[in-house]
Amino acid sequence: MSNNKGFASDNHSGVHPDILKAIVSANVDYTIAYGDDEYTERAVKKFKEHFGDNIDVYFVYNGTAANILGLKTVTHSFNSIICAETAHLNVHECCGPEKFTGCKLITILASNGKLTVDQIEPYVVGFGDPHVAQPKVISITQPTELGTVYTLKEIKELSDFAHKNGMLIHMDGARLYNAAASLNVGMKEITGDAGVDILSFGGTKNGMMFGEAVIFFNKKVSKDFVYIRKQGMQLASKMRFISAQFEAFLSNDLWLKNARYANKMTQLLHKELKDVPQIKITQKVEANAIFAIIPKKYIIPLQKEYFFHVFNERTSEVRWMCSFDTTKEDIMNFTEIIRKTIAEK
Amino acid sequence: MSNNKGFASDNHSGVHPDILKAIVSANVDYTIAYGDDEYTERAVKKFKEHFGDNIDVYFVYNGTAANILGLKTVTHSFNSIICAETAHLNVHECCGPEKFTGCKLITILASNGKLTVDQIEPYVVGFGDPHVAQPKVISITQPTELGTVYTLKEIKELSDFAHKNGMLIHMDGARLYNAAASLNVGMKEITGDAGVDILSFGGTKNGMMFGEAVIFFNKKVSKDFVYIRKQGMQLASKMRFISAQFEAFLSNDLWLKNARYANKMTQLLHKELKDVPQIKITQKVEANAIFAIIPKKYIIPLQKEYFFHVFNERTSEVRWMCSFDTTKEDIMNFTEIIRKTIAEK
Amino acid sequence: MSNNKGFASDNHSGVHPDILKAIVSANVDYTIAYGDDEYTERAVKKFKEHFGDNIDVYFVYNGTAANILGLKTVTHSFNSIICAETAHLNVHECCGPEKFTGCKLITILASNGKLTVDQIEPYVVGFGDPHVAQPKVISITQPTELGTVYTLKEIKELSDFAHKNGMLIHMDGARLYNAAASLNVGMKEITGDAGVDILSFGGTKNGMMFGEAVIFFNKKVSKDFVYIRKQGMQLASKMRFISAQFEAFLSNDLWLKNARYANKMTQLLHKELKDVPQIKITQKVEANAIFAIIPKKYIIPLQKEYFFHVFNERTSEVRWMCSFDTTKEDIMNFTEIIRKTIAEK
Amino acid sequence: MSNNKGFASDNHSGVHPDILKAIVSANVDYTIAYGDDEYTERAVKKFKEHFGDNIDVYFVYNGTAANILGLKTVTHSFNSIICAETAHLNVHECCGPEKFTGCKLITILASNGKLTVDQIEPYVVGFGDPHVAQPKVISITQPTELGTVYTLKEIKELSDFAHKNGMLIHMDGARLYNAAASLNVGMKEITGDAGVDILSFGGTKNGMMFGEAVIFFNKKVSKDFVYIRKQGMQLASKMRFISAQFEAFLSNDLWLKNARYANKMTQLLHKELKDVPQIKITQKVEANAIFAIIPKKYIIPLQKEYFFHVFNERTSEVRWMCSFDTTKEDIMNFTEIIRKTIAEK
Repeated sequence: MSNNKGFASDNHSGVHPDILKAIVSANVDYTIAYGDDEYTERAVKKFKEHFGDNIDVYFVYNGTAANILGLKTVTHSFNSIICAETAHLNVHECCGPEKFTGCKLITILASNGKLTVDQIEPYVVGFGDPHVAQPKVISITQPTELGTVYTLKEIKELSDFAHKNGMLIHMDGARLYNAAASLNVGMKEITGDAGVDILSFGGTKNGMMFGEAVIFFNKKVSKDFVYIRKQGMQLASKMRFISAQFEAFLSNDLWLKNARYANKMTQLLHKELKDVPQIKITQKVEANAIFAIIPKKYIIPLQKEYFFHVFNERTSEVRWMCSFDTTKEDIMNFTEIIRKTIAEK
Repeated sequence: MSNNKGFASDNHSGVHPDILKAIVSANVDYTIAYGDDEYTERAVKKFKEHFGDNIDVYFVYNGTAANILGLKTVTHSFNSIICAETAHLNVHECCGPEKFTGCKLITILASNGKLTVDQIEPYVVGFGDPHVAQPKVISITQPTELGTVYTLKEIKELSDFAHKNGMLIHMDGARLYNAAASLNVGMKEITGDAGVDILSFGGTKNGMMFGEAVIFFNKKVSKDFVYIRKQGMQLASKMRFISAQFEAFLSNDLWLKNARYANKMTQLLHKELKDVPQIKITQKVEANAIFAIIPKKYIIPLQKEYFFHVFNERTSEVRWMCSFDTTKEDIMNFTEIIRKTIAEK
Repeated sequence: MSNNKGFASDNHSGVHPDILKAIVSANVDYTIAYGDDEYTERAVKKFKEHFGDNIDVYFVYNGTAANILGLKTVTHSFNSIICAETAHLNVHECCGPEKFTGCKLITILASNGKLTVDQIEPYVVGFGDPHVAQPKVISITQPTELGTVYTLKEIKELSDFAHKNGMLIHMDGARLYNAAASLNVGMKEITGDAGVDILSFGGTKNGMMFGEAVIFFNKKVSKDFVYIRKQGMQLASKMRFISAQFEAFLSNDLWLKNARYANKMTQLLHKELKDVPQIKITQKVEANAIFAIIPKKYIIPLQKEYFFHVFNERTSEVRWMCSFDTTKEDIMNFTEIIRKTIAEK
Repeated sequence: MSNNKGFASDNHSGVHPDILKAIVSANVDYTIAYGDDEYTERAVKKFKEHFGDNIDVYFVYNGTAANILGLKTVTHSFNSIICAETAHLNVHECCGPEKFTGCKLITILASNGKLTVDQIEPYVVGFGDPHVAQPKVISITQPTELGTVYTLKEIKELSDFAHKNGMLIHMDGARLYNAAASLNVGMKEITGDAGVDILSFGGTKNGMMFGEAVIFFNKKVSKDFVYIRKQGMQLASKMRFISAQFEAFLSNDLWLKNARYANKMTQLLHKELKDVPQIKITQKVEANAIFAIIPKKYIIPLQKEYFFHVFNERTSEVRWMCSFDTTKEDIMNFTEIIRKTIAEK
């Protein structure tokens, strides 16, 4: 067992060998900086294969930027953005969205991380009233920060509601592949085809080194992105090294294989733990995360063996995530350690 | 001749083999994300070897971010930042500094890219007057955007003036190594020791893939940086891949060798061209850039062979930069083409 | 009956005669602009009589500005501000707080408009974690936007909790006088003495024409306000006309008489309506507002006679406010109309 | 002599009696707050009489707000705004424009305060280049901060150039009336008819108590203003008291009479001083300001008699302004004191 291995987050992993190979292969010759290069052209083509020809796609360094810059592009400073209280946007971006867009985040308590029209409706009011932040975007995360997955129908209900009210749907797809693998559908079906207007598409959590994409399915709203990206400090000079990664990521089903594998390992972990009486699984296990309440006293001993995060100190709820390189052995070792720890204490 | 080679910018180059090797070597095991890892610890140690123990150093993705986030950390929204009109900060960051800091950039016409106390003094006024942006930072670029290099004495004059007025010195050191190589001094001597408070330290323009550093010599002003970096979308999850690059970059004099080499190639290019009567060199050649006015009609034919940027369309001034991987053959080919082109037209 | 009279808001009233007289009296001679005048000096002195000598007080044009600029002065862009979901700050300032401060508003569902330590505690977490907005301010409104009044004890509990956690208490006191009159205490007792650090102090809703004050009881945090006020477009050139109003407002108990009177009229209205079975009073009537659910069909006919606002379209909840110039006759007429309307429909 | 009288600024004056009368007259009955009232309706009608039917006009508290909010409405955060270095926008708004719009101010050295196309042209570049702030607005002040007045032809040249480049013209008309009086034309001729798109229209410097207007001649760009005004803390609750002032100001030629009078007094002052050898008038005297270099030693003694501002400490340049209530006696007294002071020293 590598004493570094753990279940803390899929970004504790390294880089998938195929991605690293693509990076190394891109290191020849000179290329024009800032994205006007062949690697980027090819990567964009790959995106169009997966998401349709009618998209605009741009690369940035990380997921926080993909979210914030995508949202900035489609909002005015007097708009509101509706999201789940648990949204990464809300809790883990150090109020970057507010700082950079000026917008108000209206947060909805959503016990499983998923928004519904019923919950949102009371906040979609005040259009035309200057005292009130004007509702503009509904932002959902797929899979959610709680490891649950929106069905196609659920997304469509939200996007229909949004569009009926002149609003847009933003999807934080930092782990979109895990959702697609879980639902066994293509990525286009649960994004552009389902009414998503702007998508943050991740790579880092599934084997990339760095780099995320912002995809606009609604090309009417994308035209300012290039300025906002530069102003937002996210225009990479040696862009080819992001593009080459994405090209590899979206080729030969690498994204899908990695995602399927991580989901499968998560199901295995789930299977091993779901009947342990001291462990209470709190969310449906639909992607590559498990949320569970475990007795506090086990946490530190377990973390020493396989590191993971405590999601909620008060309730003693923890999160375990699997990655493209989690091994069956990791799972078996970890579950054995859990059982042993429980037996001993 | 590689038809990609050119003199446009040192960021058209790829990644130095030693840096790439460091990246590949870092791709083992799991590490804690966001910088709490051994690679980052070792890279910070390397920085302290070069810049002194008494620094705070943080990594971001690129130079625009290093500048903007460093400045945001030490300013209030009602401050002014004084810089040369030619500063990258002013002309090539799409008003990101204004957007993110709120501050006013006061720009000084500086024909050689260098600021002097005499030029700045008239703008260092209005302290305590609420109508007026409060002067807070003098930002200089070393080497300047015009390829010139501040002497140690020149920097000290500026920093003495700044500190006497309760202001700080920010240095955009995207190519600091080229200046250090040019002056034949250590990097600490022309930064912290010379009174610089905040330094943007580049890597990408000297063989790195991505990643820049913000160094605070004045630890009293650095405490908010970690929040501003995250809020500023610049906290890399797989930080180790920036850190590993910096560790290699600052080891075995790689930074210095690369910089010396690029400077040397630039001097060679200068030597070959300085007596061509159709070419008027406009700035002292002190680092790795040459600025020259050439007849307009030569520009496009030459760009087809070796790409480079026109710096000023009106005056037909061009910029030629050398990089760590510019070869002597590149120089000789290019100068021959120049001579041929001139002879033919 | 004046067909303009109504119960919509205390800012539908005009200006109290004593205030208008003060304005007219200030219209002699020249004065230095921007607050460096005798009127302002005298007004500041009046504030110190009421709020203690150890304050910094500044004037702005309106309440939205008082809130936003006060909060901007004491926060960094990466902070969070905790407030009730019903806070004016949250719902009626068109995300000005987010735009101008960058901060996240964390909103608490508070059925009576009042925050408690228990509700806040779960959000006062993440200190030192750069991913998370750093908690900095608890903002309360006194009286609340629902017409309820914090007791001295309730305020102290919040301020103790805030200070224990290195946070500050901001109070939106747009109608502070109504709370003071309701509790029968001095304004200092329920602000500075109770641990409030920054107070927005209104005047417009109690007989002034325009002008609000920001009072810092914690002088350590006020030093940047003058720059933020100017930058925030709130430095009045002919300041004397705000100052003269405040001087009159705080003299001869005008503020208190007006507030007591408005509260008394509100109690009268409450008395007249509380036993009408078709009207369900939803909040304690502690200041100068009554919240009530009434059958939808009555609303428009009643609004035609005496205008008022619907607070919640869904629940058919309305708000009736009394002002310094609401007359007993207004109340009696209105309640009679209500009874008649109910009888007829 | 009133010992308060002076020549510091036209906002040291009080309120014109007709304006004050209008305020007092407006203090009857209740009105809907926030501008949905008859006074505002009538004031808007008055504006249309003077500026044409095809405008959108909104009221704010002061000139800094009129400038900043008008500009914010027509810009994105990645735009640049070109103005004279002496523009109020640049030097006396504490970088509020940068803070609130995010835009870069590109400042042009203009010795007489007036911009020309020749000066601007080099900065109207980089369209489509994401590295560069996108030029969007040319902002001019009429009359300028140096007391000079753009001719109709000069304005048209600028607006033609702006529109040809897809840009807009903003005019800071804090003292527009003084320019109109000076040129002896209507206000519409030198604003909307001359190609101005957005106008900040002042009142405070010509006899009003507070309140300025933002006029959009280009209705395509005004639609967001109402949200930006509220978010920008500039929506007055008791709006009628601004509107009533503007109605009076724009009735019976009050604006014109006051402006003509102030200009006339300025010409008188100019006539008295222009041949005094110790006084060097530095700008054409075209509106209600005189700029002059006088020996330093006279400044303090003179300020004690009639206060005025030093415009430039280094060059000993002062500014004298006349107002609607400057008297002939003031001028004569002041010039006598000047002569006496010179004779004595």
